[in-house]
Amino acid sequence: MSVKTRVYEGKAKILYTTDDPEILLAEFKDDATAFNAQKRGSIEKKGVINCSISSQIFQQLEAHGIRTHYIDTPAPDQMRVKALKILPLEVVVRNIAAGSLCQQTGLALGTVLKKPLVEFYYKNDQLGDPLLTSDRLFLLELATPEQVDTIAHLALQINKSLCDFFGRCNITLVDFKLEFGLDAQQQLLLADEISPDTSRLWDNSKQSDPNLRVLDKDRFRRDLGNVENAYQEVLQRVLKAIESSN
Amino acid sequence: MSVKTRVYEGKAKILYTTDDPEILLAEFKDDATAFNAQKRGSIEKKGVINCSISSQIFQQLEAHGIRTHYIDTPAPDQMRVKALKILPLEVVVRNIAAGSLCQQTGLALGTVLKKPLVEFYYKNDQLGDPLLTSDRLFLLELATPEQVDTIAHLALQINKSLCDFFGRCNITLVDFKLEFGLDAQQQLLLADEISPDTSRLWDNSKQSDPNLRVLDKDRFRRDLGNVENAYQEVLQRVLKAIESSN
Repeated sequence: MSVKTRVYEGKAKILYTTDDPEILLAEFKDDATAFNAQKRGSIEKKGVINCSISSQIFQQLEAHGIRTHYIDTPAPDQMRVKALKILPLEVVVRNIAAGSLCQQTGLALGTVLKKPLVEFYYKNDQLGDPLLTSDRLFLLELATPEQVDTIAHLALQINKSLCDFFGRCNITLVDFKLEFGLDAQQQLLLADEISPDTSRLWDNSKQSDPNLRVLDKDRFRRDLGNVENAYQEVLQRVLKAIESSN
Repeated sequence: MSVKTRVYEGKAKILYTTDDPEILLAEFKDDATAFNAQKRGSIEKKGVINCSISSQIFQQLEAHGIRTHYIDTPAPDQMRVKALKILPLEVVVRNIAAGSLCQQTGLALGTVLKKPLVEFYYKNDQLGDPLLTSDRLFLLELATPEQVDTIAHLALQINKSLCDFFGRCNITLVDFKLEFGLDAQQQLLLADEISPDTSRLWDNSKQSDPNLRVLDKDRFRRDLGNVENAYQEVLQRVLKAIESSN
């Protein structure tokens, strides 16, 4: 497989074409951004760590019948993925109130939601990825009602599977962001990544101090320190959980 | 009717109790605020003008079977209204894209929407009146699903009636904000005001220059000048339309 041209560079990954038009190569970067890229930095080994965590999680999800874009990992920071038409939506599943949900509703950080909340945001850096109501989503024709229904259903299925998996890592899955894309057959597949960059993960073994519990990008956003250690810790627990289940 | 104690002071009105516990007196202020009160000023005679416009519109709506809190206007800047439990919702009906809808979706100012859009915002100054999805509205228990259905239905009925009425004023109703409250029998009534403070009104007789068309608080928000004249112009046209229909 010879790497060809760069087709997309996002905040955390670069996508390259490959010899096979149906396959892209995703290279995970160490670059870290927050608050719509107003805060920029770098997290050591993040590319390798997030590529590893994501690939493990995608394989877990595939084993539970969730179709993803994941193919394999030819290098520690590289993932071969199916070429998809990515929908311009960020799908956020929330189990516990945090981040913008708290800021925009006044709910206290840590409020356990009675049921998981599936929210849609417009994936548009220029607009700052704004929250979408259903009406706005359809007004902008970002997806069809059938696609939205399918995505909401998949998001809850994925949430169930991930809550269980992270539970085995002694981690609480607070919330996470998903992206979906369409393959040539117009099938919806889970795309992007699932990592401490795109989720909030709280360590169950450190209940005394809320800040100590944070094992995700909030350590970078909120300058809590030990960012690399937290990412590394998640990877170690993910690998251990998978090992013990085999 | 002897005026008693002040029960509420908002950005544009003060509410007083009266001898009758089921009736409040609303005094319309000349104070003008925008961008969640970050911009402050005063518009000459706004209190009297908005009280007059609102009272005329409430009477028009009542004549079309829409129940409102309006009773009468004992003084030019004073309106007697039914005492209601106001729901903490700002209900915005949009016919044409403007304001935050453009900022948050990228839709061009002036885009005519295929059908009117009814949006709910959390009436909460501290949070900046954020947009609500249905899920967030119910999560915060701001209203019941039945109330939301009734409000959406009423909002569209009111829109139809107001589009027709402002059409007779040679004015395009771009968008407007409504508030609703519950009376002692738990009936939903239209409350607050309908005025150039709470709606976007574009003059149909000045099609050449978009800024010249603006007859509402956007003249204040965007420093377009002639704010008082615009408000006065709306009042004159409203009175003329009512006179010619009698």
